[in-house]
Amino acid sequence: MGKGGQNTIIEFYFDFSSPYGYFASTRVDDLAADFGRTAVWKPILLGVVLKETDMRPLADIPIKGDYAKHDWERMGRMMNIPYRLPSKFPVATQAAARAFYWLDDRDSELARLFAKSALHAYFAENVDISLPAAVVDIAAALHVDRDELSQALQSPAIKERLRTETMNAIGKGVFGSPFFFVNGEPFWGSDRMWMVKKWMQGENW
Amino acid sequence: MGKGGQNTIIEFYFDFSSPYGYFASTRVDDLAADFGRTAVWKPILLGVVLKETDMRPLADIPIKGDYAKHDWERMGRMMNIPYRLPSKFPVATQAAARAFYWLDDRDSELARLFAKSALHAYFAENVDISLPAAVVDIAAALHVDRDELSQALQSPAIKERLRTETMNAIGKGVFGSPFFFVNGEPFWGSDRMWMVKKWMQGENW
Repeated sequence: MGKGGQNTIIEFYFDFSSPYGYFASTRVDDLAADFGRTAVWKPILLGVVLKETDMRPLADIPIKGDYAKHDWERMGRMMNIPYRLPSKFPVATQAAARAFYWLDDRDSELARLFAKSALHAYFAENVDISLPAAVVDIAAALHVDRDELSQALQSPAIKERLRTETMNAIGKGVFGSPFFFVNGEPFWGSDRMWMVKKWMQGENW
Repeated sequence: MGKGGQNTIIEFYFDFSSPYGYFASTRVDDLAADFGRTAVWKPILLGVVLKETDMRPLADIPIKGDYAKHDWERMGRMMNIPYRLPSKFPVATQAAARAFYWLDDRDSELARLFAKSALHAYFAENVDISLPAAVVDIAAALHVDRDELSQALQSPAIKERLRTETMNAIGKGVFGSPFFFVNGEPFWGSDRMWMVKKWMQGENW
């Protein structure tokens, strides 16, 4: 598959509780659109990923965690993206990620809209998106049926789906959030988007 | 002290065995010069820093380490900086860092030239800069007296100096390489140089 061509696939892995994932989420669709492509969004459970790869959540690492908190605030200001550290951080993101995949099977554009709303709610409005009720509220504002979604969030199928997506991500080498693939080429971090762009341009790196 | 002003101090911490430190080293002087400033180079022992902050060398972390190796090769190509993973990696960098500080006390421009030569020797020419003899060779090519430097590398004073610089760096919050401060504001990583630049510009972040 040629780089930068019509068949270029750009995948965007993130956790709903990852600030760097949030920052990247505000840019990835525009980046893909510049090449006439649509990014494939893939929420995962970063906690599971870190356990499998024997790493700790960034915020738990002494010194580095404090720096990260400072860096997030600064990055929000510098990228002009509304951000403040949520009062509950990090949070479990099963509900949000399950809702995403349930929507994605029906309407992938709606699923992306939901993801953007949920990330904004958490990082800009301090909504605790670990609560299924909050997730259902966010989806309902996009005209998703409350009862149907509430029920879906409890279904074994959707739980299994998220587990599978997370394990597949680990299998592909994902070890952080955000994580991108352009036709399989891996890029870790919101600060690698300039590389993602170059790869999309199809130059022979 | 005003940001972006004539008194702006930009400090550049790195380990001689750090690929991201090497990439940053090829750009930091130009960045400082754009603002009429000279970067203060500060080699440190990253191994000591990581131990103090309970972290592991990047290359030792499963999955992430392999990704990093791939990222370094790719970054060299994308930034057009000659790079290949040295056959011995990482290496102890006491000799190079001690030589730097000994030179720095005499002629800081010469010390920076030496640092650039040593980084290039290691990352572009596969020279094992853990060997004091290699370090002396690199300095000698810049007309530094071999005997004087060889002797200096063994002196308790220069050993103590590097220890102090490394401990001071840890005290300031350095936990990786490269690490920058602009008037005390911390920036970690070669991919934060756009932020360093914005900070130098003195906009009110």
